Amino acid sequence: MLKVHAQSREELQASLKAGLGEGLVLTDAAEMVRYCRDWHGDVSSSAVAVIRPRNVEDVAATVRLCAELGLAIVPQGGNTGLVLGGVPDAPDHQIVLSLERMNAIRAIDTDDFSAVVEAGCILSEFKDAVQEKGMFFPLSLGAQGSCRIGGNVSTNAGGINVLRYGMTRELVLGLEVVLADGTIWNGLSTLRKDNRGIDLKQLFIGAEGTLGIITAVSVKLYPNPEHVETALLGLNSLDDAIKLYRRARRECCDLMSAFEFMPPVAFTLAMEAIPDLKMPIAGDYAAYVLMEISGSGLVDTSDLMSRFLEGVMEDGLVLDGVIASSRAQAQSLWMFREGMNEGQALRGAHMRTDISVPLSRLAEFVAEAEAELAKDLPECLAVSYGHVGDGNVHLNVLPPNGSTREERDHYIYKAKVIVNAVLDRYAGSISAEHGIGRLKRGDFESRLGPVQREMIERLKAAFDPELRMNPGCQLALQAAS
Amino acid sequence: MLKVHAQSREELQASLKAGLGEGLVLTDAAEMVRYCRDWHGDVSSSAVAVIRPRNVEDVAATVRLCAELGLAIVPQGGNTGLVLGGVPDAPDHQIVLSLERMNAIRAIDTDDFSAVVEAGCILSEFKDAVQEKGMFFPLSLGAQGSCRIGGNVSTNAGGINVLRYGMTRELVLGLEVVLADGTIWNGLSTLRKDNRGIDLKQLFIGAEGTLGIITAVSVKLYPNPEHVETALLGLNSLDDAIKLYRRARRECCDLMSAFEFMPPVAFTLAMEAIPDLKMPIAGDYAAYVLMEISGSGLVDTSDLMSRFLEGVMEDGLVLDGVIASSRAQAQSLWMFREGMNEGQALRGAHMRTDISVPLSRLAEFVAEAEAELAKDLPECLAVSYGHVGDGNVHLNVLPPNGSTREERDHYIYKAKVIVNAVLDRYAGSISAEHGIGRLKRGDFESRLGPVQREMIERLKAAFDPELRMNPGCQLALQAAS
Repeated sequence: MLKVHAQSREELQASLKAGLGEGLVLTDAAEMVRYCRDWHGDVSSSAVAVIRPRNVEDVAATVRLCAELGLAIVPQGGNTGLVLGGVPDAPDHQIVLSLERMNAIRAIDTDDFSAVVEAGCILSEFKDAVQEKGMFFPLSLGAQGSCRIGGNVSTNAGGINVLRYGMTRELVLGLEVVLADGTIWNGLSTLRKDNRGIDLKQLFIGAEGTLGIITAVSVKLYPNPEHVETALLGLNSLDDAIKLYRRARRECCDLMSAFEFMPPVAFTLAMEAIPDLKMPIAGDYAAYVLMEISGSGLVDTSDLMSRFLEGVMEDGLVLDGVIASSRAQAQSLWMFREGMNEGQALRGAHMRTDISVPLSRLAEFVAEAEAELAKDLPECLAVSYGHVGDGNVHLNVLPPNGSTREERDHYIYKAKVIVNAVLDRYAGSISAEHGIGRLKRGDFESRLGPVQREMIERLKAAFDPELRMNPGCQLALQAAS
Repeated sequence: MLKVHAQSREELQASLKAGLGEGLVLTDAAEMVRYCRDWHGDVSSSAVAVIRPRNVEDVAATVRLCAELGLAIVPQGGNTGLVLGGVPDAPDHQIVLSLERMNAIRAIDTDDFSAVVEAGCILSEFKDAVQEKGMFFPLSLGAQGSCRIGGNVSTNAGGINVLRYGMTRELVLGLEVVLADGTIWNGLSTLRKDNRGIDLKQLFIGAEGTLGIITAVSVKLYPNPEHVETALLGLNSLDDAIKLYRRARRECCDLMSAFEFMPPVAFTLAMEAIPDLKMPIAGDYAAYVLMEISGSGLVDTSDLMSRFLEGVMEDGLVLDGVIASSRAQAQSLWMFREGMNEGQALRGAHMRTDISVPLSRLAEFVAEAEAELAKDLPECLAVSYGHVGDGNVHLNVLPPNGSTREERDHYIYKAKVIVNAVLDRYAGSISAEHGIGRLKRGDFESRLGPVQREMIERLKAAFDPELRMNPGCQLALQAAS
């Protein structure tokens, strides 16, 4: 049970500073702002304090002191999450525990194809350090310049390379975790293969800080794929894009590293954000695919991409396409994919989804959901794009330009009801890669079977009986007594 | 707490038959023999009964009835495990729950690259059915003609393709599990990407039946690799074999599917088991590698293998080699690898290990362990081989021919002490792929840190508070009161 002490906010802040040292504790409202709002700026909240530990012992001390003071803990990495998993929601009872100062790369071992990195290291900084040693860490996200490894692991982040390398879970070899009672678990193995019973680290990957605080991670590294082929292709339909994916999966085997679907409006949106983007394909097509093949060493990816595209163009599956002839050109193709996200953001608050359905039903699902949206919300713009090779689509709905915040909220609510109703008919997932956090908690709980709920509650009771670890994230639980 | 009722064995057997039906319950001692001994025939035991459910409801009914009767449950697949995880050890208090009748393949979906299969399906039968549809299930083990999928998942089996496709864990999309209270959890999703919070299935993968009984599994499928190149190579040392692996990892990228190390004695042992095997390389080398590259579609594996071998032979890393020019020739190369296991078995009881250390220290570890064995047990034969790409070596110790069973037990005991002492200095794992079971329980527990032990105990208390699920496997736990 969460003990609630009769201390005022100021007394709690003083106790935190006394117990942990002034240097670790932020209480100034202005300084706390950026830790207490979400990435999109949709939600802002507050907290008793923001604690910024320098090492795992600081984290353990914070957890113990919070227990004494009756405070709950919201762990936070780069605060780039899309589901409010790291944003506090009980200003008088929660502290934010930011891992941003624990950002050391403890080891990069090229001989073992492994690395050990602290939770607060920014993903792109880690990727760069690894690349300098000729290695590759495959996790690739739009937010990689700001997100931090601990958050990536806590949310089991996805991204554009999942179809080849898997979600973050599949990249993790070991964890260091501070448990709810302040105990430090050192599970930082770099053994490639270790099958000693129950794999405890799996509990914390994707738990979004509800079972413990990840403070460091050991991960797999890959040989750096020096040869990368990027192509933008025009097709007749999403259905053809999925056919293309299946064929690429066979013909290019495990060398395909990205396969992103975009509708024509993607280019409109991207050019709203980046006006001097040039459309790289002349004609207009109903569907576009951004595809990447990569490899290292003796593998001839250029030849593979050419032969693959020859075949699929001959068969009329791909209507037109361009292969990047330089790294700069490849980057400009990817700018459409990134620009379309920025373009959506520029149009103001909108409904974002992160849906997965079986690949075989993806095109049908998107058509049905878009038809229902067009019928009931004709004034809104539906944009469906994403990692279709994983059955993962971001079906977003943009209210008309000029909508007020209130109108937007109304559109977002209605669109969500429509899309989720279709999704449920397809037995899909409301969260393919973003996690649950606080934003999707209601949708998650309402679809949760009683057996699964009971299992999660047993885990919470076993690892966080006082409900002190990121309460309100994933499930709304009540203390037992 | 495990309720112990005052019923005799005969009364318990009668109660099981009355409750579940005669057809599900074996009690005849002769019929039970094969369920109550281990694969190698080292251990035989007995049980109150062997229950063979036909469906998940039968499993749930068995679990509930066993709770009423105060019986514990030892789940069993093909009983091919190497660590006694499925072999009962309390004849008057345990039943064996064999999943062998639940062997249906519920679905193979080539469009979704997924399948759903019951726990009792034999691995090779599943692989064959998948291959008939042009797909591939990568798990490949010596025991695949007898082991069953449920056991593979419960033990998180490894095998020869781990370096490309990962352990069994990485192939699983969803599970159906009967929990200790008889509840059925249907977590059989085939969604490729589904990130809705804590990933409950991970709990049961590798738990060896100690948290619940896996009754069905949904798995990832891959395009069938139609092009397979197999080569047997002669090298100067294990150290060179590891150098070769690192180079292959880069030059052949993710297309390398197996990399097995064998010492010269492998061929002697293989020819003892399969006398008409012909040595495919003329000279004598200190180390051999069996390497496989595979791919589908447009990927030219033959060209890749040739160019790779040209380079490494030019540089003197590989001294001689042969590439199989047909499937039959490839199989005969693999027969050395399988024959060496049979040859070891023919020499009688011996010490088998399943060790992993960081790849960068593997050669050093093997040299040190073999030197200590040569010093203290000069009359024994040490054979080190295995999946060196994963840092996983099977360092086995064979007592001299003609040793009695008692002498063998003594040698096995001494060899284990020697090898484990070296292993501990290298921070290695006593079980890279076989699991813990009952055989390695002592070695596991004695190396288990208090935090990790506490975490496992909390899981057991949360999911099996009466210690009814495979007690004695992994940990020796006492009921709370």
